[in-house]
Amino acid sequence: MLEELKQQVLAANLALPQYGLVTFTWGNVSGIDRAAGLMVIKPSGVEYAGMSAEDMVVVDVVSGAVVEGKWKPSSDTETHRGLYLAFENIGGIVHTHSRHATIWSQAGRDIPAWGTTHADYYYGNIPCTRLMTPEEIQYDYEWETGQVIIKTFQERDIDAEQMPAVLVHSHGPFAWGKDPIDAVHNAVVLEEVAYMGIFSQQLSPQLPDMQQTLLDKHYLRKHGANAYYGQ
Amino acid sequence: MLEELKQQVLAANLALPQYGLVTFTWGNVSGIDRAAGLMVIKPSGVEYAGMSAEDMVVVDVVSGAVVEGKWKPSSDTETHRGLYLAFENIGGIVHTHSRHATIWSQAGRDIPAWGTTHADYYYGNIPCTRLMTPEEIQYDYEWETGQVIIKTFQERDIDAEQMPAVLVHSHGPFAWGKDPIDAVHNAVVLEEVAYMGIFSQQLSPQLPDMQQTLLDKHYLRKHGANAYYGQ
Amino acid sequence: MLEELKQQVLAANLALPQYGLVTFTWGNVSGIDRAAGLMVIKPSGVEYAGMSAEDMVVVDVVSGAVVEGKWKPSSDTETHRGLYLAFENIGGIVHTHSRHATIWSQAGRDIPAWGTTHADYYYGNIPCTRLMTPEEIQYDYEWETGQVIIKTFQERDIDAEQMPAVLVHSHGPFAWGKDPIDAVHNAVVLEEVAYMGIFSQQLSPQLPDMQQTLLDKHYLRKHGANAYYGQ
Amino acid sequence: MLEELKQQVLAANLALPQYGLVTFTWGNVSGIDRAAGLMVIKPSGVEYAGMSAEDMVVVDVVSGAVVEGKWKPSSDTETHRGLYLAFENIGGIVHTHSRHATIWSQAGRDIPAWGTTHADYYYGNIPCTRLMTPEEIQYDYEWETGQVIIKTFQERDIDAEQMPAVLVHSHGPFAWGKDPIDAVHNAVVLEEVAYMGIFSQQLSPQLPDMQQTLLDKHYLRKHGANAYYGQ
Repeated sequence: MLEELKQQVLAANLALPQYGLVTFTWGNVSGIDRAAGLMVIKPSGVEYAGMSAEDMVVVDVVSGAVVEGKWKPSSDTETHRGLYLAFENIGGIVHTHSRHATIWSQAGRDIPAWGTTHADYYYGNIPCTRLMTPEEIQYDYEWETGQVIIKTFQERDIDAEQMPAVLVHSHGPFAWGKDPIDAVHNAVVLEEVAYMGIFSQQLSPQLPDMQQTLLDKHYLRKHGANAYYGQ
Repeated sequence: MLEELKQQVLAANLALPQYGLVTFTWGNVSGIDRAAGLMVIKPSGVEYAGMSAEDMVVVDVVSGAVVEGKWKPSSDTETHRGLYLAFENIGGIVHTHSRHATIWSQAGRDIPAWGTTHADYYYGNIPCTRLMTPEEIQYDYEWETGQVIIKTFQERDIDAEQMPAVLVHSHGPFAWGKDPIDAVHNAVVLEEVAYMGIFSQQLSPQLPDMQQTLLDKHYLRKHGANAYYGQ
Repeated sequence: MLEELKQQVLAANLALPQYGLVTFTWGNVSGIDRAAGLMVIKPSGVEYAGMSAEDMVVVDVVSGAVVEGKWKPSSDTETHRGLYLAFENIGGIVHTHSRHATIWSQAGRDIPAWGTTHADYYYGNIPCTRLMTPEEIQYDYEWETGQVIIKTFQERDIDAEQMPAVLVHSHGPFAWGKDPIDAVHNAVVLEEVAYMGIFSQQLSPQLPDMQQTLLDKHYLRKHGANAYYGQ
Repeated sequence: MLEELKQQVLAANLALPQYGLVTFTWGNVSGIDRAAGLMVIKPSGVEYAGMSAEDMVVVDVVSGAVVEGKWKPSSDTETHRGLYLAFENIGGIVHTHSRHATIWSQAGRDIPAWGTTHADYYYGNIPCTRLMTPEEIQYDYEWETGQVIIKTFQERDIDAEQMPAVLVHSHGPFAWGKDPIDAVHNAVVLEEVAYMGIFSQQLSPQLPDMQQTLLDKHYLRKHGANAYYGQ
């Protein structure tokens, strides 16, 4: 069942320690088969070393029910599921506690677009969600985490395809992409810009956002109809 | 004698350089056999490479006498011993000078609970001890180091099971757990939250502690009767 | 065609991940054959792993036309080309988004000459360009990037041979040298001094430039007619 | 000639990249045979990879003449030589541009004794020299570098055996020890305390020096007649 997607999700999960994005089991990647209405996700609390495609868990995107799998799915499954339902064009999601993106999350701040590294992948400031309410935390916490992300994008009119990451306040980042490995790719970039942002501000405490023209130029030379980067 | 525990203590000591927690021989792990009233600890000043289970030293927890071993035990043995006597439910202890936890120790500051990475393992701010008195330093220094830790937990009414680490002022961290490798696991997490705390404060100098509701949620979903993380 | 230069350019490109200067494909190196009027450059968006000399692209330096190659050349080719035309004694150019040099670029600041590590390679402060105008960004962006670099050197009367690097504002560094691997060598040094500069200023916020006498001494013991460093 | 010392000096030089203390050829270690009045030092500007004992250069400590060797000695040889003449009980010297020790050098600041990691090896604040005068820089620069170090120790009444490192202003660190590998060992510790000092001060900007009693305790439990650390 969904063997190719399981392989992709496995490979994307194994890429997390390779890119230095995770400590222990602190990260998970999922992928979705839109036609089947099913998502595949890492099992909860299982170590990356020795993990195989058969360990991946298949979940029904609409109901949240486990359809196949010998383990419980990641405790963050409900967050992933909500994002797939709301962001209809994404194919993979990753959650980590990567150090520098988590630092911005803990500080409760958006990562400003301060350079072309950022602009090549993220079309504007990377948003940080508001604090969750006690009710959101106490009841159906993981589902509500996703809903707070979605509300952030709605209220601030952000397009999830042009902004493939978010910082959850006091927690850490989620990133996504057209498939699981693309989501991990975006999580790596997020960590880079998060690192560089901390020290860019240290060097220039009142640093303004980059020029809109330059942001447009870099984002659009890599994305959309007029892209000309790569082969 | 205590072969299994020696193997565990050896493995936990060898994990220290693997996790990047030590330079040279600057770290030691011990484990306890509560029934036998004996602890096993790394020898003093011996390098990790080439160390074997036979190099571990067995110490009587009540008297402090060396019961077996070809080397002198770690110079921090008396600190470990005091902690085992005071914290009755812990099974392993680790001391390192890991960079970022040591930075907070040198600064003489608690590490605030600023995010869910912290809350998943530590139920509140990680305490830093007060300065030791000249008397404590000059007479029975290593024993007194443990006593200052214990007093810190008593005076601030902190439960050592819910707070498996401490920062010794001007020195560095001790962490513990249900067994030696669990203690090392907690020391790795401590180093992560110590790193992230430094730069979270840099981004947001007046950063308040995280919400109590969120701290409760994360700690309690991984610990205690209602835990639901993992398999 | 230009087999030796292709090998040099390949080797220099492969050195980028080895020195930790690049993430993904975020860097490119070129070299020039002045007699032939041809430059060799990395293809656009191709991964370093598995790249061979045959993947390199040959470009006419005067016209910008691709003379040989199965791929499109790096999207930064026009920047390289402009620099070769203006700086007549350089033989190789590298562009990266290496973390700490990029941080200074994002902050829009020159890297001051604060120590002998810097003075051994860079004869003065490493300049950061001004912001580009909307016109420069929108029309012929990559070419104009090179022109802004050149104008910076002209207006500030900087000799490109004595100052083999520049920071492009809101973007990242370009470095150059007598051949492709020497350009990479200078990019490594740039990253070192960029890192050290950030924290030198943190320790001493009003840090003045280093003494001119010391700058002269170190630069000139390694460069020019009276050099005495090395064999 | 001096084969054992050459092997020691070679091994100590090769340890520099292993400990991450050097980039390219930016470091050199020497050792001395006091009875013979000869020192052995790394050749100038030669890469560590492939270096053998035969590449080491033998220099007369009193006259500075090269006694044996196929290469020119390190350009820093005169600094080493001066230190051996002034500090009569040291057996090895190392110079690097290791990142964090160099940062303190660039900032022109002593590294305060802020914790027991420091106190275990350095008996007090690690001194930074004054700026060199134009005359010292222009005439016999490398020799004068050593003399400024020596004057710093004399004027501040510092014992080179209890303080086995110095920061040369605007330049970088020298460290020493009882033999070449012990000098490297001290250089590694220096880098650790330099790193931790930067961020200790960030967390606590008005951080006082550590207690003298604690400094005494830690230094003296590892050094001198009453040491009890190790086997």
